[in-house]
Amino acid sequence: TGLEPSWLYQLSKAGKLCVPAMNVNDSVTKQKFDNLYCCRESILDGLKRTTDVMFGGKQVVVCGYGEVGKGCCSALKALGAIVYVTEIDPICALQACMDGFRVVKLNEVIRQVDMIITCTGNKNVVTREQLDRVKNGCIVCNMGHSNTEIDVASLRTPELTWERVRSQVDHVIWPDGKRVVLLAEGRLLNLSCSTVPTFVLSITATTQALALIELYNAPEGRYKQDVYLLPKKMDEYVASLHLPTFDAHLTELSDEQAKYLGLNKNGPFKPNYYRYWSKRRVMEFSSFPPFRHRHGRSAR
Amino acid sequence: TGLEPSWLYQLSKAGKLCVPAMNVNDSVTKQKFDNLYCCRESILDGLKRTTDVMFGGKQVVVCGYGEVGKGCCSALKALGAIVYVTEIDPICALQACMDGFRVVKLNEVIRQVDMIITCTGNKNVVTREQLDRVKNGCIVCNMGHSNTEIDVASLRTPELTWERVRSQVDHVIWPDGKRVVLLAEGRLLNLSCSTVPTFVLSITATTQALALIELYNAPEGRYKQDVYLLPKKMDEYVASLHLPTFDAHLTELSDEQAKYLGLNKNGPFKPNYYRYWSKRRVMEFSSFPPFRHRHGRSAR
Amino acid sequence: TGLEPSWLYQLSKAGKLCVPAMNVNDSVTKQKFDNLYCCRESILDGLKRTTDVMFGGKQVVVCGYGEVGKGCCSALKALGAIVYVTEIDPICALQACMDGFRVVKLNEVIRQVDMIITCTGNKNVVTREQLDRVKNGCIVCNMGHSNTEIDVASLRTPELTWERVRSQVDHVIWPDGKRVVLLAEGRLLNLSCSTVPTFVLSITATTQALALIELYNAPEGRYKQDVYLLPKKMDEYVASLHLPTFDAHLTELSDEQAKYLGLNKNGPFKPNYYRYWSKRRVMEFSSFPPFRHRHGRSAR
Amino acid sequence: TGLEPSWLYQLSKAGKLCVPAMNVNDSVTKQKFDNLYCCRESILDGLKRTTDVMFGGKQVVVCGYGEVGKGCCSALKALGAIVYVTEIDPICALQACMDGFRVVKLNEVIRQVDMIITCTGNKNVVTREQLDRVKNGCIVCNMGHSNTEIDVASLRTPELTWERVRSQVDHVIWPDGKRVVLLAEGRLLNLSCSTVPTFVLSITATTQALALIELYNAPEGRYKQDVYLLPKKMDEYVASLHLPTFDAHLTELSDEQAKYLGLNKNGPFKPNYYRYWSKRRVMEFSSFPPFRHRHGRSAR
Repeated sequence: TGLEPSWLYQLSKAGKLCVPAMNVNDSVTKQKFDNLYCCRESILDGLKRTTDVMFGGKQVVVCGYGEVGKGCCSALKALGAIVYVTEIDPICALQACMDGFRVVKLNEVIRQVDMIITCTGNKNVVTREQLDRVKNGCIVCNMGHSNTEIDVASLRTPELTWERVRSQVDHVIWPDGKRVVLLAEGRLLNLSCSTVPTFVLSITATTQALALIELYNAPEGRYKQDVYLLPKKMDEYVASLHLPTFDAHLTELSDEQAKYLGLNKNGPFKPNYYRYWSKRRVMEFSSFPPFRHRHGRSAR
Repeated sequence: TGLEPSWLYQLSKAGKLCVPAMNVNDSVTKQKFDNLYCCRESILDGLKRTTDVMFGGKQVVVCGYGEVGKGCCSALKALGAIVYVTEIDPICALQACMDGFRVVKLNEVIRQVDMIITCTGNKNVVTREQLDRVKNGCIVCNMGHSNTEIDVASLRTPELTWERVRSQVDHVIWPDGKRVVLLAEGRLLNLSCSTVPTFVLSITATTQALALIELYNAPEGRYKQDVYLLPKKMDEYVASLHLPTFDAHLTELSDEQAKYLGLNKNGPFKPNYYRYWSKRRVMEFSSFPPFRHRHGRSAR
Repeated sequence: TGLEPSWLYQLSKAGKLCVPAMNVNDSVTKQKFDNLYCCRESILDGLKRTTDVMFGGKQVVVCGYGEVGKGCCSALKALGAIVYVTEIDPICALQACMDGFRVVKLNEVIRQVDMIITCTGNKNVVTREQLDRVKNGCIVCNMGHSNTEIDVASLRTPELTWERVRSQVDHVIWPDGKRVVLLAEGRLLNLSCSTVPTFVLSITATTQALALIELYNAPEGRYKQDVYLLPKKMDEYVASLHLPTFDAHLTELSDEQAKYLGLNKNGPFKPNYYRYWSKRRVMEFSSFPPFRHRHGRSAR
Repeated sequence: TGLEPSWLYQLSKAGKLCVPAMNVNDSVTKQKFDNLYCCRESILDGLKRTTDVMFGGKQVVVCGYGEVGKGCCSALKALGAIVYVTEIDPICALQACMDGFRVVKLNEVIRQVDMIITCTGNKNVVTREQLDRVKNGCIVCNMGHSNTEIDVASLRTPELTWERVRSQVDHVIWPDGKRVVLLAEGRLLNLSCSTVPTFVLSITATTQALALIELYNAPEGRYKQDVYLLPKKMDEYVASLHLPTFDAHLTELSDEQAKYLGLNKNGPFKPNYYRYWSKRRVMEFSSFPPFRHRHGRSAR
C-alpha cells in the first residue's frame, strides 16, 4: 500500500522531498479498512487456509493492540478463542482491558498458548528463547509489518529441522520432537496466506486516485515540498462513495441543525477544534521528571 | 465534566482567553472512558432502572455513531437487540456498516422501533412529527448532550397528557391512547437515571489534576493564552496509573527495539508523525466543486 | 415459579401424588426465558443497582455453566469482563471452552477475581475458607437457587463485622479491614435486586394457563396420577403467541415439504425420534467399570 | 457421519432392524461439535476459500435456526454481517429473536441480501422464482443436508448460462447479465469447500468407538433389536476425554454436595427427571382444536 508515511516525514524533515506528497495511508477510511476491518477477517482466513485449526477454546496471544491487533482479537474472541494481549503503550493496554482481554507479558503465557500472532510493527517480538518454551503444535504467525516481528533467523540453526508441510506452512522441529507451526516464514499472513477483498482495494484505490487528482489540479502554491494529509472532506467523500454498497442512507442536516453545530451541510462533519490536535507538539513537558511507569506486579 | 472545549476554542479565537487553558476533555483516555466505555454500560443501566424493559429481540434506533453511539450500539446488540443507526457523517456511517448495523434515516424505521436513543450532540433529532408516528409503548431517551436532542417542547401541548409513572419516567399520552415513554424529560439518561462508576471518575479526576499541576509548575513562557491539549505522554501516564486495577502487565521495549521504532522507552509510544495531523487545516480543497454526497436510494 | 419439578417426580415415585401434574417448568420456552434470556439481563441489572460496578476489565468467576450460567457469562463477556467458569459436568465444561471461557477450579482464581457469581443449584459452592482468600472489595452473589450456594452461615461469626451499606448490600469486614460485598445475603440476586420483565412473566403465565386448561379439559383417563411434560405442540404454541411482539414472521411448510419432512404443517416441528430420548434410562452401562474422569493437571 | 438416525427409527418401527443400533448422532457432545461449533467456523472458511467475500456490512439470510443455523448466524454477526433468519418452528424463531436476529419470510428480504445460506434439512427452501429476484452477485450456498435445499435443478435451463469460475464456484448468468454465485452446486459447503478440524473428528470417532465397544461388551439381553441413545454417562466421558486439550479443570463434587444433589460423584450429572422427557409421547392433545398458529402480519 505504498510508501510508509514515516519515510515521507523523514525525507521532509531532512529537506530531501522534491515534490508535494499526500499521506494517504493515514486517512481515516483507508486506515480502518486496511487494518481493523480487513485483518478482522484475514486472520481467520489465513489461519484456516494454512492450518485448518479450530478456533473454539484455543488460547491465543496477540502481540500489539493497535488497529490490526484489535481486529484480530475481536474476530478470535467472537469464535470462542481465549485471547491474551501484550502491549507497550498504556493507553492501548487499557483499551484491551476494557474490551475484555487480559494484558500480559508474553513470558507469562508462552507455555500455554496454542497460537502466537504478532501485530506490533516492532522487531524480535517473539524470540528464539520464547519459541524454545512454547507447546508442541503451537502456531506462530505475523500480521504486523515486514518480516521482523518473529526472530525467524534464530530458527535457522543446525539443531532444528524445518519441514515444509504445505505451501506457506513449515514445521520447525526441536530435537525432542516438538513442532512449531510457522506460517509464511514470518512474513505477513494477511498478504501471504489470505486474500484482500475487492471492497478494501476499492477504498484504497479511491483514496489514492483522489489524492493524485487533487495534487494535479491544485493551483500553484497550494502545496509545497511537504507531506500533507488527505483533507477530511475528501476522506468523507471516499466513505460516502462506498455507502450504497451497504444500502446505507445518510441523514442530512437541516439548515437549523447545521447552524447549531456550526457545520457546512456537506461536511466536513467534525467540528473545527478537532484540527488543533497537534498543539501538543509544542510542549516539552519536563515537569514530571520521574514519570516512569509504575505498574504490573513489581509495583504492588 | 467541565467547560465544553469548543467554547474554549471560541474564546481563544476571539482573543478573550485571559489564561492558558488545558483541553482535558479531548485527551484519549478521558474521552474513551467518559463516552465509549461508560455509556456502553449506562445505557443498559439507565433503561433497566427506569423501565425494566427486556432488551432481547427489541428493535432500537440509535441516532449518532460517535463514541457514545458506538458504546450504546455495542451493548444493546450484545444483549440481543436489533439495532439501527442514523448518521450524518459518511465515515461514521461506514463504521456502523462494518460493525453490523443498518444505517437508515429515522423515518424509515420510526414506526417499528421499540426504543429511540439520541447520541448526536445535535438539536431536534427527534421531532414531534416523528413522535406522532411511533408505536405505543416506544421508549425515547437521550444519551447525547444537554436536553436539545429530543424536541420535548413540542410535546407540551394541550392535546397530549403527561403522566409521571415513576421518578424520571413520563408517559406522554396521545388522544388515541398511545403512550410514549419519555425518560428524564429528554435530559441525559446516563446522568439522570444511571450512575457514573468510580473508575471513570478516577480517570477524569486524574487527568484534570495532572493538567492543573502542569499549568502550575510550568516555567514562565511555556504556555500562552491559548488552548492546549494534554501531552500524549501525560495521557499515557493517566492510563498507566489505572492498569494495576486490572492486573495488567505492560511489556517494556528493549533498547534495540526502542531504537528500531525511534521511540523513548518510557513513551510517548506513538511515532512522531502522528503529530502532524493538523496539516490538513491548511487546505482549502476547492478542486472538487461538485462534491455533493451522492448516496442512498435516490442516488442509484 | 412454582413447585420444583424434582419434588413432583419424587412424590410420583413414592406413589404420593394424588392428581395428575404438569411439569411446566421444563417446557423449552419457559426454561429458556426464565433462565438463559432473563438472567442474561438480570445479572447486569442486579449488579448495577446494588453496586454501580463497572464491568469492563473486571475478572469474574461464574460457578456453573447451565442455562443461568450461560446467560450470565454471555452478558458479562459482552460488556468487557474476563470470565472464568467452574463446572462439574464435562459436557457443560466443554461447551464453556468452545464459548471462549477458561474452565478452572474455584481455588485457581479465587485470589484474583473481582466478582463471584454462583449458578449451580448446589450447596456450599463458595466456602468460608475461599472467602477468606478473596480480594478486598470482591463482590459475591448468587443467581442459582434458594440461598444455599454461598455458605453465608459461615460468615456470621464474631470476628467478622457486617455493615449494611445499602438495601440488599452488606459489607462483611475481616479483622484486617478487607471487605467482601455480599449481595442479598446470598439469596437470589435476580429476584431480590433486579426485576422480572413482563415479557418473561407472559411466557410463564401462558404456559401455566395452557397446562391448567389442558388438565381441566382432558377426557377422563388421559392423565393418571403422574407427572407430565407440556406437549411439544403446546410449547410451540406458547412461543408462537409471543412472536408478533417482535414482528417475527414464521415460514409455513408447503404440502410437499411437510411430506418430505414427515411433519404436520401445524407442528410439532421436531421429528418423532426426538421423543425417544429417554431410552437411555433403560441402560445400566456397567461395561466401563473404571470410568473415573481423567482430566485436568493431575492427569497429564 | 453415518446413517441418518431417522432411518434407523423407521427401520425399527417397521420391525426391519436385525441388530441393536446405537444412535450416536444424537449424543449431545457429537451433536454440538458436528453442528454448532464446527459450522460456526466452516461457514466463514467455506465462503472465504470460494469467494474471498468480505463479511462486514453484508446482508445475509440464514434459512433455519437449528444448531447449524445458530452457528452460522453467530459467526456472521460477529464479523459484522447483518443477518436475517427464516424459521418454521416458533420455538426456534423465538430463540432467533432473543439472539438479535430479525425473523422474516425469505420473500421479504430476497431482493436485498448479499448471501443466502440454507440450514434447514428441508427441500426446495430456495426456489427458482426466488433466485430470479436476487441481486446481481448474490452468493447462494447450502450448509444443511444433502443437496435438496436449493432447487438447483431449476437452474439447469437453456436461458441460464453456467460459468465455472473456480473449483466449486459457478456463476449462473441470467439473460440480463445478472450473476448468481452458486457454491458446490448446492451440495454441503462445509464438506465441499471447507475442512473438518481434527478436534471434531476426534469427538465423533471417540463417540462411535465407545458405542461399538459397549454393544460388543454388553451382556446378552441388554440390547434388543431397537435403536438406543448413547448413555448420558458415556456422552460425558467423551467430553471429559477432550477437556485436557483446553487445559480445562473440572470441579469435583464433595460427598455432601453429591448427596444434596442426589448424584453420583462420577456422573451422570443431570438429575434423574431429565430422563422422563419422552412422557410427552403419550399425549394426543386434542383439546385445543383451533390451535392454528396465529402470528405475523396477517394475524394482527
